Amino acid sequence: MTAEWDQHVAVTARGDGAYDAVLTDGWVVGGGVNGGYLLAIIGNAVSHELPDKPDPIAVSAYYLSATEPGPATVQVRVLREGGSVATVAADLSQGGDPRITALATYGRLDGLPDDVRTTAEQLVLPPRKQCVPNTMAPESLRRVAPLMDRFEMLFDPACVGWTTGEPSGSGVLQAWFRLKGERDPDPVQLLMVCDALPPVTFDLGLPGWAPTLELTVHVRGVPAPGWLAVRHATRNIAGGMFEEDCEVWDSAGRLVAQSRQLARLPRP
Amino acid sequence: MTAEWDQHVAVTARGDGAYDAVLTDGWVVGGGVNGGYLLAIIGNAVSHELPDKPDPIAVSAYYLSATEPGPATVQVRVLREGGSVATVAADLSQGGDPRITALATYGRLDGLPDDVRTTAEQLVLPPRKQCVPNTMAPESLRRVAPLMDRFEMLFDPACVGWTTGEPSGSGVLQAWFRLKGERDPDPVQLLMVCDALPPVTFDLGLPGWAPTLELTVHVRGVPAPGWLAVRHATRNIAGGMFEEDCEVWDSAGRLVAQSRQLARLPRP
Repeated sequence: MTAEWDQHVAVTARGDGAYDAVLTDGWVVGGGVNGGYLLAIIGNAVSHELPDKPDPIAVSAYYLSATEPGPATVQVRVLREGGSVATVAADLSQGGDPRITALATYGRLDGLPDDVRTTAEQLVLPPRKQCVPNTMAPESLRRVAPLMDRFEMLFDPACVGWTTGEPSGSGVLQAWFRLKGERDPDPVQLLMVCDALPPVTFDLGLPGWAPTLELTVHVRGVPAPGWLAVRHATRNIAGGMFEEDCEVWDSAGRLVAQSRQLARLPRP
Repeated sequence: MTAEWDQHVAVTARGDGAYDAVLTDGWVVGGGVNGGYLLAIIGNAVSHELPDKPDPIAVSAYYLSATEPGPATVQVRVLREGGSVATVAADLSQGGDPRITALATYGRLDGLPDDVRTTAEQLVLPPRKQCVPNTMAPESLRRVAPLMDRFEMLFDPACVGWTTGEPSGSGVLQAWFRLKGERDPDPVQLLMVCDALPPVTFDLGLPGWAPTLELTVHVRGVPAPGWLAVRHATRNIAGGMFEEDCEVWDSAGRLVAQSRQLARLPRP
């Protein structure tokens, strides 16, 4: 049986680097389709285009205009291939209109040297039983965010104050994450995980949609099976924008993805 | 009198988004031309192409192959313009061969909302008189790094152990920075500043060239005149690669640029 996730990010090759996809309404949040899910579709198309180098290493996406559920096309252009990595440009469009433009470097994560010297402090979340599942969100929120049914997301109780009007103000959101049906993580899936949590601005008392201008993800290792621990943080709100840094740690305690995005503050 | 910097990043419009530039050998370091300088040339071409939105807000560059001093061309394609920002693709090539491909979102930094809520701890370096100028570098190093004559760079004494074979091992390099001739910083210049210090791996006992795969810079404000304080840090060495995060603080104590790059570890 194909997991729901694999159906949702499936692409069909049309030749010459073009891929058809269908953006499911299952990943809608607020008025749009989740940007991480869209990036994973782009990432999946690139994987198909580079069968010898199927893993994202660095992906940068610029969001041009809002997507809607329905058919989409991903066009992949190989800019450089040679040695251990390849670099591509990839564009997601709908009805001929560009929605997302991206650059990416791909390779084989399992073929990289084995050295790991991580000085980042491992993200240790409270035991899952003590965490707050997203399924406890009010019906009004769940109705506009069907993506919440795609995964299990268990929030660190220290950063759920925003759900009761008492945001911590520290600019941090962190949670356990696992796709529905216990679908294990893989490198392409991590592109989505980096943008799956609510905007970190929720924790600053600024609820609402925070449109991403730019999102870059570095995938730093093949994630081990099981739960992921995810942390969003911001440190610089200025000029109506904020950066959101994301770390994803796998069940083996390895920092497998790091991302940063620049997003607009939600409108009051 | 035109400052040296402005001569070095000058571009000449050829029409249809194409710009000629000359990569000076004054920015050579080791075997190649400094990647931050190259990004500033691309950034300057984009500024010329978007006279109403001349400031970089987010720029992502993927380095495809090594550049050499001499003529280069930057081709800018506007992907979306409308509202307060524009997004472009820009490619730097030499002799018809692509060297760097980039995406960027530009706008007007002085037209952004005035709110600044930075929780990042301000980078406070020791007084400049107590810092270690790069001009004290051994002649053998200066000979292969003419870029060191382009600026004043005064290192925090806590992170210069690598110059005497005793790197601190903490994965941090920080320094005061100012272009030669006291040329004040501007938004495009910050694209260079984010890649001007030696690789942070010097502080980990891994000297040598660390080729950048990807570099994304967010320019978060117009820098005030005067010295900049710059910090490089890495927290995750894995798979033969490391991330390098850079913060640039201006003389008014504002965090004006944040960048992250993914680079290959120097070969032993």
